[in-house]
Amino acid sequence: MPRKIAICAPGKRMRRERAEAVLSLASGRSDIELHFHEQCFLEEGHFAGDDATRLSALLECANDPGFDAVWFAMGGYGSNRIARGFIDGANVHARAKRYLGYSDTGTLLGAMYREGFGRVAHGPLAGDIKRDGGEAAIARALDWLAGETRGLEPHLDERPAAAFNLTTLAMLVGTEFAPDLAGHVVMVEEVAEHLYAVDRLFFHITQHTRGIAGLRLGRVSAVPENDRPFGTDEVAIAREWCARSGIEYLGRADIGHDADNKIVPFGLAARGAAP
Amino acid sequence: MPRKIAICAPGKRMRRERAEAVLSLASGRSDIELHFHEQCFLEEGHFAGDDATRLSALLECANDPGFDAVWFAMGGYGSNRIARGFIDGANVHARAKRYLGYSDTGTLLGAMYREGFGRVAHGPLAGDIKRDGGEAAIARALDWLAGETRGLEPHLDERPAAAFNLTTLAMLVGTEFAPDLAGHVVMVEEVAEHLYAVDRLFFHITQHTRGIAGLRLGRVSAVPENDRPFGTDEVAIAREWCARSGIEYLGRADIGHDADNKIVPFGLAARGAAP
Repeated sequence: MPRKIAICAPGKRMRRERAEAVLSLASGRSDIELHFHEQCFLEEGHFAGDDATRLSALLECANDPGFDAVWFAMGGYGSNRIARGFIDGANVHARAKRYLGYSDTGTLLGAMYREGFGRVAHGPLAGDIKRDGGEAAIARALDWLAGETRGLEPHLDERPAAAFNLTTLAMLVGTEFAPDLAGHVVMVEEVAEHLYAVDRLFFHITQHTRGIAGLRLGRVSAVPENDRPFGTDEVAIAREWCARSGIEYLGRADIGHDADNKIVPFGLAARGAAP
Repeated sequence: MPRKIAICAPGKRMRRERAEAVLSLASGRSDIELHFHEQCFLEEGHFAGDDATRLSALLECANDPGFDAVWFAMGGYGSNRIARGFIDGANVHARAKRYLGYSDTGTLLGAMYREGFGRVAHGPLAGDIKRDGGEAAIARALDWLAGETRGLEPHLDERPAAAFNLTTLAMLVGTEFAPDLAGHVVMVEEVAEHLYAVDRLFFHITQHTRGIAGLRLGRVSAVPENDRPFGTDEVAIAREWCARSGIEYLGRADIGHDADNKIVPFGLAARGAAP
């Protein structure tokens, strides 16, 4: 029996031709069956449908016992707006599935991990098909959704881990959705932020995560040109704020807004084979 | 005796010709005497000198009993990087003065207010001379620095208040520098952020400030064009996140990244006449 994967978009909409490319790629595999929810293709202002529509689609995907896993189509912005409704509306089936995504959808992953349900992982979105090398990212995601344990971030060790987009984590810490990351190796990545903003975000997250086992820095890509150079780089920034907060800086992580983005299951339980 | 005002730049450097314009404007007043610290004009990467240089200048201005008040020259970014050193190094003289600034320097104002020292207010920077109508902003700032009580934000009532740039507040909440804002009317303003980012920032700050008396929304200006419209405006955003967190939305505030930016003393004690 193939594992059935439901796909929805908690933030930004997905272009239909990209979903078709993902379906085409997956059609050669007998171990999975992809189901794109129509909500993925809606557009309402900034979002793939309004809050009620996105929440409803997410709950349909998560609560249906016919689906083995939920894959997020796109990041963008908006998953924090439906996180409360999702946590409150998720049933026993939702609590047993795998969930995969990153970027903005890290808010949902974090909230689920906080609530102790799902097997959640930070890894490629369906929309990553658009990237250079996107087919490899999709294959990696499909492996994990199929219940495999390939494609994991290579620095994972015996300690629990979690991974986030830096901005997403900064907006998550201290909120009702923030998981307890004490004792975890926390990996962060960023895209399209000025280095001064990255510095400011590191100030915030290191203040909020003093009990973690250590921090690993993923890729910080597409940094915009500023009117003046910041004067240092992302590694120096991460090292400095870790040192200021007494957090161990553990080196780089193989995650980022790119096709090489490896999979980081949250905690230890999610690292095993299916479910 | 004129009140002596020391000016330094905890984040970005100031252009010398702007300082000269401010000095020229102030030269007609017998009630104040301005002293620009040379550090205002330094440039090191993103900052007006490195951390040690900026901290040293700030402590010189604050700790010198010859100065009655400290005025921040510029915002930009960087005051969080020297906040710990400032709090630890401030002496009894520093604890009695007026401090005026906004934008990035809100981190220092917040940290001082948390520690119960200084009479701090959110209001024009010396660098606001560059704005349309900047002379009025400078005159308003000079009045407050001189110990006057003119130019205050018109909605201030019997409750304590505080004001922040939205991003600055979002990066401050939950950190070792965050003041207790319970029972306060909190005013926020923003500049040059996409509305989706404003929405995300409101999510974060309303999660962190549930005990406040209410929120007032200053101006949200210079919003960049996005590839798609957000679908709502800043008032709707503020109202919604306040409602979600049980915070009373109190209406607009007369603050912003502009020359009309009125003065919001933090708490009640700072509203009185000098010191």
